[in-house]
Amino acid sequence: MELAGVAVRRLDAPREVEVPPHLLTTDAAALVTRDDIDVVIEVIGGIEPARSLILSALESGASVVTANKALLAEDGPTLFEAAEKAGRDLYYEAAVAGAIPIVRPLRESLAGDRVTRVLGIVNGTTNFILDKMDTSGAGFADALEEAQALGYAEADPTADVEGFDAAAKAAILASLAFHSRVTAADVHREGITEVTAGDVRSARDMGSVVKLLAIAELREDADGEAVSVRVHPAMIPRSHPLASVREAYNAVFVESDAAGQLMFYGPGAGGAPTASAVLGDLVTVARNQRDGTRGAGESAYADRAVLPMGETRTRYHLAIDVEDKAGVLAAVALAFAEHGVSIQTVRQEGRGNDAQLVVVSHGATDAALSATVDMLRTMDIVREVTSVMRVEGTEE
Amino acid sequence: MELAGVAVRRLDAPREVEVPPHLLTTDAAALVTRDDIDVVIEVIGGIEPARSLILSALESGASVVTANKALLAEDGPTLFEAAEKAGRDLYYEAAVAGAIPIVRPLRESLAGDRVTRVLGIVNGTTNFILDKMDTSGAGFADALEEAQALGYAEADPTADVEGFDAAAKAAILASLAFHSRVTAADVHREGITEVTAGDVRSARDMGSVVKLLAIAELREDADGEAVSVRVHPAMIPRSHPLASVREAYNAVFVESDAAGQLMFYGPGAGGAPTASAVLGDLVTVARNQRDGTRGAGESAYADRAVLPMGETRTRYHLAIDVEDKAGVLAAVALAFAEHGVSIQTVRQEGRGNDAQLVVVSHGATDAALSATVDMLRTMDIVREVTSVMRVEGTEE
Repeated sequence: MELAGVAVRRLDAPREVEVPPHLLTTDAAALVTRDDIDVVIEVIGGIEPARSLILSALESGASVVTANKALLAEDGPTLFEAAEKAGRDLYYEAAVAGAIPIVRPLRESLAGDRVTRVLGIVNGTTNFILDKMDTSGAGFADALEEAQALGYAEADPTADVEGFDAAAKAAILASLAFHSRVTAADVHREGITEVTAGDVRSARDMGSVVKLLAIAELREDADGEAVSVRVHPAMIPRSHPLASVREAYNAVFVESDAAGQLMFYGPGAGGAPTASAVLGDLVTVARNQRDGTRGAGESAYADRAVLPMGETRTRYHLAIDVEDKAGVLAAVALAFAEHGVSIQTVRQEGRGNDAQLVVVSHGATDAALSATVDMLRTMDIVREVTSVMRVEGTEE
Repeated sequence: MELAGVAVRRLDAPREVEVPPHLLTTDAAALVTRDDIDVVIEVIGGIEPARSLILSALESGASVVTANKALLAEDGPTLFEAAEKAGRDLYYEAAVAGAIPIVRPLRESLAGDRVTRVLGIVNGTTNFILDKMDTSGAGFADALEEAQALGYAEADPTADVEGFDAAAKAAILASLAFHSRVTAADVHREGITEVTAGDVRSARDMGSVVKLLAIAELREDADGEAVSVRVHPAMIPRSHPLASVREAYNAVFVESDAAGQLMFYGPGAGGAPTASAVLGDLVTVARNQRDGTRGAGESAYADRAVLPMGETRTRYHLAIDVEDKAGVLAAVALAFAEHGVSIQTVRQEGRGNDAQLVVVSHGATDAALSATVDMLRTMDIVREVTSVMRVEGTEE
């Protein structure tokens, strides 16, 4: 392979790696449409000008390797259709979970299986923060500050801590796993800014750990099978393979009918890991071009609907400060029963003024669970609902 | 795709899945050479007749998907050359670690990276036994008996507990990771039959766990880089991602220059997981045939030598029962020094007649470490060397 050119913003910017000056250009649009270019690698990120450049490249007959999760999650189908029309490859292993091979396994290795669920820790920043909170007992603000000091979180951490980055990856994973078109707008998203040291302690007490999960799963609804796709913090048992994913590492846990439970683990970000994934794609695309063929394109034949969050079945863990008087447990249990939510366990902690109930529900619709929490908050005997968190990685 | 025929040993054997009788035949050799056959799936196992059938199929113009680790490890190059000559595909994802996608990631995803080490838990039976010994304190014999009662070990467990199965997979992984031809005969192999409850306890005392590892790594030798490939029990720190692989699960941990540390986890055996891997390969091969192309063939360009075990650098953990008198520690330390082996930690436990030294060495050649152990065994002050085990998953 021969490097034909590199489009940069500024020709004279200092660079770690020396690039022969004649290869540099600031005119990306002209570079990607040159006749002698076979493959374009896009690592700009963001929506524009990345989208226009990728579309121009494909139209001009080049294949594309991209690491652009935001663009794929927002407007993947436009890109896939352009690749299909041009008869060219569009590869994007680096867009989800950095160097971890997950796109190729979902597209190819599991092509003869039926994936039923994907649970991913796909954002290193939030995993670092939650891991720190778990190991040190720190609150969110302190853990974020440490992550920033160590370079794991940006000065403006919004994209990470509010779950936008994870939501883009969830959309891509759901599209691949369920052969359907799922975009970032379809993803129910909650970040980790409201996770407290108390939530983390509560999780620890029940042998669990709090992780920000990107979840995509097949669910029955009235019209057959639909896709639930969401990003939110959740408690998972410490015995779950995802629980041992520490610091800024990523992992994607896949459940399928035949293969059972698989997990793919590794660094989720960084220049070198991204380069590893990009180069792997580049080798494949180059082989395809040499052989006059192309790899598998978009697979959206299943065309499943996305289930609204309210209809998604989840489990809840709640910690509730209550008045210490007779009948409190019965009243709380009644609030759950009224919404058709079955309680799996309830534990009463403390006495007198510090009485606390810790309730874990069975699976119920998110709407029913939310309504239950709303009702609890209006009850006189409830002082405060101190922790509300979904529970994943267990049977309903 | 259309199922053209199924070769079986007995036409009237009871089957879980009903197959139309006209598809069944006992003449496998005739089936695989039929003109209308595009892909042959071989799941017989063993060397013959599997090898002859695969070679006939390739010569007749069919591509092959196989789960046959023993054959690939013994005679892979013959098969790869036949596939190359015939211009056909030979895929074998199911041959290593069941449904876990590891062949495709090594062949394709990491094609632009440089793999430096592969550590695999690739045999479910031995992992189940060692996990049971770790959690219950049982000895090898009791844990094996439980594994047999639960169907995790066969009546004759030799292939598993003596490491033959893992060695075949180690050869395949080493070939893929290092673009070289490595066969089962190149693999240094030690099983788990001599792992004692004391070894497991000793590991626990130092925050480690005993696993049977298939190891393939790049090592410097006089002529440049060589491949060390071996299967043996080893202590790894509990913080290592492989340490949390429980029961009969498999996992392959890969280190590379750019991607860093990756791990692939899942069920390593079983009918359905194997079928998942076989069908994934089948879909890829069918796509290739439709497009008149083939996937990446054997990659053996690096052609690295295999390093003899004696020259491989490892670390040792030793537990030594010694006489309780002055100068014992100095004498033991001298035995290490005489062989140029540097001690990382030494811990003295017990007193009086029960004095025990626990020594962990720095990395040294396996030959030097073996010679050190041999010398210790001849020393008057040494009552018994009670545990000798290599240490992996840490820095030298």
